[in-house]
Amino acid sequence: MLTFTPGPTEVPLRVLGAMLREPQNPDLDESFAEFYEGLCEKLRRIMRTRGDIIVHSGEAIMGLEAAVLSLVEPGEKVLTMTSGVYGDGFIDFVKAYGGVPVEVRVDYDDVVSPEEVDRALGREGDIRVATLVHCETPSGTLNPLREIGKVCRENDVVLVVDAVSSVGGVPVEVDGWGVDVCIVGSQKCLSAPPGLGIMSISKRAWEKIEERRGNGFYLNLLTWRDWWFEKGVFPYTHSVSLLYALDEACSMLLEEGLENVFRRHRLVAKAAREWVKAMGLKLFPRKEEYCSDTVTAVEAPKGLNEEELRRRLKEKYGVMIAGSWGKLAGRVFRLGHMGYNAQPGKLLQVLLALSLCLLDMEFPSKTWEAMSAAEDVLYRSE
Amino acid sequence: MLTFTPGPTEVPLRVLGAMLREPQNPDLDESFAEFYEGLCEKLRRIMRTRGDIIVHSGEAIMGLEAAVLSLVEPGEKVLTMTSGVYGDGFIDFVKAYGGVPVEVRVDYDDVVSPEEVDRALGREGDIRVATLVHCETPSGTLNPLREIGKVCRENDVVLVVDAVSSVGGVPVEVDGWGVDVCIVGSQKCLSAPPGLGIMSISKRAWEKIEERRGNGFYLNLLTWRDWWFEKGVFPYTHSVSLLYALDEACSMLLEEGLENVFRRHRLVAKAAREWVKAMGLKLFPRKEEYCSDTVTAVEAPKGLNEEELRRRLKEKYGVMIAGSWGKLAGRVFRLGHMGYNAQPGKLLQVLLALSLCLLDMEFPSKTWEAMSAAEDVLYRSE
Repeated sequence: MLTFTPGPTEVPLRVLGAMLREPQNPDLDESFAEFYEGLCEKLRRIMRTRGDIIVHSGEAIMGLEAAVLSLVEPGEKVLTMTSGVYGDGFIDFVKAYGGVPVEVRVDYDDVVSPEEVDRALGREGDIRVATLVHCETPSGTLNPLREIGKVCRENDVVLVVDAVSSVGGVPVEVDGWGVDVCIVGSQKCLSAPPGLGIMSISKRAWEKIEERRGNGFYLNLLTWRDWWFEKGVFPYTHSVSLLYALDEACSMLLEEGLENVFRRHRLVAKAAREWVKAMGLKLFPRKEEYCSDTVTAVEAPKGLNEEELRRRLKEKYGVMIAGSWGKLAGRVFRLGHMGYNAQPGKLLQVLLALSLCLLDMEFPSKTWEAMSAAEDVLYRSE
Repeated sequence: MLTFTPGPTEVPLRVLGAMLREPQNPDLDESFAEFYEGLCEKLRRIMRTRGDIIVHSGEAIMGLEAAVLSLVEPGEKVLTMTSGVYGDGFIDFVKAYGGVPVEVRVDYDDVVSPEEVDRALGREGDIRVATLVHCETPSGTLNPLREIGKVCRENDVVLVVDAVSSVGGVPVEVDGWGVDVCIVGSQKCLSAPPGLGIMSISKRAWEKIEERRGNGFYLNLLTWRDWWFEKGVFPYTHSVSLLYALDEACSMLLEEGLENVFRRHRLVAKAAREWVKAMGLKLFPRKEEYCSDTVTAVEAPKGLNEEELRRRLKEKYGVMIAGSWGKLAGRVFRLGHMGYNAQPGKLLQVLLALSLCLLDMEFPSKTWEAMSAAEDVLYRSE
């Protein structure tokens, strides 16, 4: 089975093999702390930051909740930019912790406008925290983070970004673009197994966190401040095996070189999109320039049951792709070409399987034209 | 290096090897849900319960916080039984979530008295939730869970038990003893890698949880109720690789047979204690019958720097043992003979290394007598 879903992705054997290492005791073995520091340094290089890094034992969504819990005062207004399922999720977190979401909202097939963000911040005047999802995985879109970061920095707003499906696949400059809290998952573009959440925290974010003094232990970033950053001790027994895997995944990425990694993602994503168009299918994002290079969301054509498509694809062709979530469920199917999945060979296998499967289902497939379009991008460009 | 610490323990290669399996997509692959159900069934057999099982992505301490967050109403009195560092930790959690701890407290070298618990519950009259740590790992003690469970059941109190360092090493009967929420970690007696917390939840506990309607997402047990138990969908992308490892660890334990596993722990623990006494050292628990069969806590003799002892033991003899935490730090060193560590060969290596190391440090070691005492237990009894 080829797992071509937008996270978890397939995991390289080299990364899985790293978990064969006999686990160190992370609480007592000083050499483990050194190893962990080395991992954080690799993550800094990938995320392009000199800020503090926290890798927590738990899935990436924990990072979103931890950021809101740690930053947002009850009754405090928070600018929640939303263009999809996870942007809406941030709103739920803000409400859960007593914050007051001020929404900048666009349709799920659209991206957030930096001008609109600037206007909203100007209009409100007293907003200090904003949330954004960089790649809205369920929609296949990529928000203009660089421009939004600039606006937030100009307005002196602490910017929290869910970059779970973008860091390691497309350029993200945490410090350069003014991202104060950047949240990443192990199982997306880094192609390590799921179970670790990564966060970068800027000085500005720490100041707000210390002012807020949020409640609780496990999700509270102050816990990390008091334990790891002050005393060099983890707040709990860390997930050593997963950290070995993540470290290996980061090494592979840095060995390949970030620019090469991004080029690979660009190429594979463009090939996927050219195939979609040549097949007579429709990309879900309303403009192609909104598409993320890490995931391609395709509108399920009228009359075609996308769940049935995915079932057949899996059973007959051994390829697993994804549907979508929330109000996009049943309307969109998605190809996850991020991280270790962003490889021409894998993409071609998936596209051919999809072409044949659509033919089986009597969709008027233009298999030859579509496969040629993809091949042209992969082997006859750049 | 032999890691002889009370969790994380050494992990069998068979368990590490299970993580070489290419991760399934836990959100989309139906066969993963089946696998997970199978794992939960194994955990039910180990924990001796027919209640619901949650395995969450995060360390075991998350389970303690999740239980308090999900069960305790602000302003509600909670009976917090404490005989050590983690019992005290429960008090902090209760306070953090607005509960009012009613303490039944004994010294760290003592165990909680069921009669005292009964009196406290009778005196207060309106307590509905109680917390207990079964094995206080930092003290090396085991609280009388069966008797305390009976008292709580008679008083209709929801009993939350940290059994992190006991389940899988000593008998725990979750249903039979009236434990409503039982919290276990992957890295203790189960000897899987750290990163997963396990909880069993009784019907009675669910009723209180639903009445409470706690806040938040990741730690809130209602999230699991709404997603996994209602819809069969995980609330987040689960830690597939660690779950493969935990499943293998549970299989190994069940193949050996719980009774055999407990006998192995009893034997190794008794050998460790006989060695301690024959060496002229002192067990930390005030009575030997209070000692847990999963960890042995030894008082650092006057004039001997236990940190120095552990450093030498590690550097010269390649054996890592543990100190202790909180107010026991520097006063106690500990041997973690739980799970995969509870093996005669490993224990003998550790005890011999300790004997020689104590000699190096001019402690009047009775190496021959002490090693003989341990060997007698291991090979000449039962």
